[in-house]
Amino acid sequence: MRYFVTGCAGFIGSHLTERLLSAGHAVVGYDNFATGQECFLEAATRSNNFRLVRGDVLDPASLRSGMQGSEFVIHLAANADVRFGTEHPRRDLEQNTLATHAVLEAMRENQIRKIAFASSGSVYGDPAVFPTPEEAPFPVQTSLYGASKAAGEGLIGAYCAGFGFQAHIFRFVSILGERYTHGHIFDFYKQLTRDPRRLRVQGDGRQRKSYLYVHDCIEAMMTALEKAQQAVNIFNLGGQDYCEVRQSIGWICENLRVTPAIEYGTGDRGWAGDSPFVLLDTAKIRATGWSPRVAIRDGVLKTLEYLKANQHLLESRR
Amino acid sequence: MRYFVTGCAGFIGSHLTERLLSAGHAVVGYDNFATGQECFLEAATRSNNFRLVRGDVLDPASLRSGMQGSEFVIHLAANADVRFGTEHPRRDLEQNTLATHAVLEAMRENQIRKIAFASSGSVYGDPAVFPTPEEAPFPVQTSLYGASKAAGEGLIGAYCAGFGFQAHIFRFVSILGERYTHGHIFDFYKQLTRDPRRLRVQGDGRQRKSYLYVHDCIEAMMTALEKAQQAVNIFNLGGQDYCEVRQSIGWICENLRVTPAIEYGTGDRGWAGDSPFVLLDTAKIRATGWSPRVAIRDGVLKTLEYLKANQHLLESRR
Repeated sequence: MRYFVTGCAGFIGSHLTERLLSAGHAVVGYDNFATGQECFLEAATRSNNFRLVRGDVLDPASLRSGMQGSEFVIHLAANADVRFGTEHPRRDLEQNTLATHAVLEAMRENQIRKIAFASSGSVYGDPAVFPTPEEAPFPVQTSLYGASKAAGEGLIGAYCAGFGFQAHIFRFVSILGERYTHGHIFDFYKQLTRDPRRLRVQGDGRQRKSYLYVHDCIEAMMTALEKAQQAVNIFNLGGQDYCEVRQSIGWICENLRVTPAIEYGTGDRGWAGDSPFVLLDTAKIRATGWSPRVAIRDGVLKTLEYLKANQHLLESRR
Repeated sequence: MRYFVTGCAGFIGSHLTERLLSAGHAVVGYDNFATGQECFLEAATRSNNFRLVRGDVLDPASLRSGMQGSEFVIHLAANADVRFGTEHPRRDLEQNTLATHAVLEAMRENQIRKIAFASSGSVYGDPAVFPTPEEAPFPVQTSLYGASKAAGEGLIGAYCAGFGFQAHIFRFVSILGERYTHGHIFDFYKQLTRDPRRLRVQGDGRQRKSYLYVHDCIEAMMTALEKAQQAVNIFNLGGQDYCEVRQSIGWICENLRVTPAIEYGTGDRGWAGDSPFVLLDTAKIRATGWSPRVAIRDGVLKTLEYLKANQHLLESRR
């Protein structure tokens, strides 16, 4: 199969690109390198089956021509940080909702009808049911990020009904592992590198979150793409356990051998729209035979080891 | 209260504007007259409490200045026709999703934090539960229109969580009555005016739909605005009964005293994304004390009488 992967130089995109190549597929990778990293594509660029197109998902002409000849689009390019929506209230709309529409239109023009989409557990807002299943009650959105991902899902559903597309939609929890470039471990490690005596935490640290290790995530996607053949295939991707932010802090500090004074914020949310509890019901993806192999604590520590070995990444992002 | 009503010259907007004025409120009406009708505002313009601003909801500067001094925004302006999404795959995105974002941003700039929004039962896609409650399982969108309205709801939810807005979101069934300017009665009457011997119907005519008479709709909105005071208040608005398209055709033909040869289409949908059965659970709005007064048959006939008396409207739309 000939895949077109947007966000190919990102955290998940670069791993998925490598995985598709090693399974013998051809991949055209598309990235504007706003947050993607050249170095994440080192392995991919060694393959004759890989071609890189530098372009923005909001550039219709570039998308259209880049997509030519591909059979399957995996749309991962996005503003992936849920926290800063209220500071930039157009960013998620443009980079997630409008970009997804641009991708769908470029597909239509190229007569490509298969898409996989990186959505998020954020689309559930503040759910009342835990673990939260794909069929949870119609959620009220609580973040611009979640709203933009839900809107992307909605557009994809409409293209499936209106234009005969087939879609695989993945609602991720936070992903951990090699090439991780944003999130609490990144923030905490960056803070502790600068000053190991002090750690500021958004919210009261009692937030409970599920996480998934990136290679477990990639295998789940590959399994779903192979086995699920409805018109619209929606899967929660996450682990069956969760941890408190405080626990993760403990693992990180132990590993770094630091004992900072920890300054917690107030309230059960790290930011407006933060969900104080994230635990997705993953029965549907597990029914395909997939299950995660790496526990949260190990995922946190692998992420930390990766950041320790790649400190240049700490400077490349806000 | 000082209301700002987008789409004030539309079907629902003009009725709501009159209703607000007669309750003693001040109304700034906003419309670009793309589908709104000057004549619908005749009564409103006789009130000293009404001011009209001509402008487009996609024009941020015009929205921002028009909104100045208002306390409550009622956002009704939209592409309101669910059927033509696949012919114009950017129209719903722009006129519904992006316009809603523009309205929210103009509100933020004016420090207005109360919004009512005209959503649609289309956001439920093809529901599995009838009557369909507000808390139905997370729907897969089946039309670009439904997707755009769901995306508007999502943005509003995010602004409530992120910026302290309060919202009333109304998911309408099809509305009937005076000033109706699109939908099956409009289409059928237009066809039969041209040629009373022949009627073409999209789909097999077995589609079952709920309808609500416009004055019942307006009273439901007024009741909800008064009584519901959560941060996000979502209400289905519809009747408790439904009819088949074939029944409605019978009422129309009997009223017009015509016996056309009826040419049905095939399949249970009138168009891609048409929902073959629409019946919303309205227990939540009825719990406020509201109930509809006009039955579907009477609503269809009132609509028909209105169109007969206002044939100029038949020419004003596609």
